Amino acid sequence: MAPHGDGSDVAEEAIVADAERRPISTIVIIIAMQTEALPLVNKFQLLEDSESLFPKGVPWVRYHGFYKDLHINIIWPGKDPKLGVDSVGTIPASLVTYASIQALQPDLIINAGTAGGFKAKGACIGDVFLVSDAAFHDRRIPIPVFDLYGVGLRQALSTPNLLNELNLKVGKLSTGDSLDMSPQDEASITTNDATVKDMEGAAVAYVADLLKVPVIFLKAVTDIVDGEKPTAEEFMQNLAAVTAALDLAVTQVVDFISGKYLPEL
Amino acid sequence: MAPHGDGSDVAEEAIVADAERRPISTIVIIIAMQTEALPLVNKFQLLEDSESLFPKGVPWVRYHGFYKDLHINIIWPGKDPKLGVDSVGTIPASLVTYASIQALQPDLIINAGTAGGFKAKGACIGDVFLVSDAAFHDRRIPIPVFDLYGVGLRQALSTPNLLNELNLKVGKLSTGDSLDMSPQDEASITTNDATVKDMEGAAVAYVADLLKVPVIFLKAVTDIVDGEKPTAEEFMQNLAAVTAALDLAVTQVVDFISGKYLPEL
Repeated sequence: MAPHGDGSDVAEEAIVADAERRPISTIVIIIAMQTEALPLVNKFQLLEDSESLFPKGVPWVRYHGFYKDLHINIIWPGKDPKLGVDSVGTIPASLVTYASIQALQPDLIINAGTAGGFKAKGACIGDVFLVSDAAFHDRRIPIPVFDLYGVGLRQALSTPNLLNELNLKVGKLSTGDSLDMSPQDEASITTNDATVKDMEGAAVAYVADLLKVPVIFLKAVTDIVDGEKPTAEEFMQNLAAVTAALDLAVTQVVDFISGKYLPEL
Repeated sequence: MAPHGDGSDVAEEAIVADAERRPISTIVIIIAMQTEALPLVNKFQLLEDSESLFPKGVPWVRYHGFYKDLHINIIWPGKDPKLGVDSVGTIPASLVTYASIQALQPDLIINAGTAGGFKAKGACIGDVFLVSDAAFHDRRIPIPVFDLYGVGLRQALSTPNLLNELNLKVGKLSTGDSLDMSPQDEASITTNDATVKDMEGAAVAYVADLLKVPVIFLKAVTDIVDGEKPTAEEFMQNLAAVTAALDLAVTQVVDFISGKYLPEL
């Protein structure tokens, strides 16, 4: 796990300074799919907002409540208003990250979700990865500097103590808006040195970095991308079981965070 | 040009009812690149906000002022804070569309920008297209209904009178976060029946549709995707000249809009 951001700039120092004055208090957990979110909503006994924090028209849902000394907010981008499926992908993820930070000023964001894993990089079905950094694999802009912008590599908050305490694997995350993987995606994922592949992480990292909120990622492997079975089929088969592993990991992380200051993670 | 949205739902009727009570007053023009934006800023004699409408940390820039009877706001997602290049692509475009609608409650959004064009569909360098509908070509989710969600087809506001008045071509727009085009992108663009290809349009359409603000698109062709020259090279060569054509078209559209009610467009 590397330090958050590469600039150690003033805003980042301000966060750390603030975080050193009081324990972590407000957490936003961004979860793209209802199936992934609901067991945690029950576990933490959160309630859905009766009046939305968010503007009329958006399907975004907040579940919130107090667990130990933490104000926990699970934000789910909701069902697409026209099609009724979960609003997966980078655009809803960036929008809810932005709107949640504006509304709640969290001390920490956790992006939790399922992911594809690469067995060549040591991933197995059911593994939960703590992500070291996130980048995009489907934003190819072959113009100098724009190419780096497209890749959008960002580091997660460094959490060495959390990592020591919990039995999690560490890996890099690569994000794209497709569930499948084209040869071009694969080449970029290889360049990104990714162990897990999702559809939201790097977008959450982008917005969190803009607004200087530290972020960590927990990604549970539902399907082996470099395996035999078709991704969509394997994903659907394993979603429920792997979600249980993910929810356990999120609970352990939240228990670990409770009462601590950011630099203690 | 087809009607906006496919549902003619209550919110949409409310917009129309409101629009029938008064002429169009506030316009937000979303432009991804500074090179595209600045000539229009000068043309409409807009001023950059001295105090940002937007949160600390985001690079988004608003230029605004009054032109004829319109309050014009050009929103440019700004330079990436770390890399210094324009914040192109769907994520910044969705974020600024969302934040601008929240801050300004515009009557109409115009997304203007350069695009790749397909000569097989009749596009030439310098053409300015009024977009009939926008969809994504790089969000492949091969699960029933999620596949449609990924494509995210949305229609622009129907503007038959504007189209009659101005000398613009009409075409469908396909959006993705890469400047180049993979074979998978190409297959999706063909399915989308697109004449022009950009990196923002369908994302602007998504957010505008969520928040029920009508949107139109003006896309000027800087490079021929199905031609001989490499896209990046051709794009850089033509950017300045084509931007002039785009800016002329935007000015004509704004002049046409001035004093009119939405249903008169």
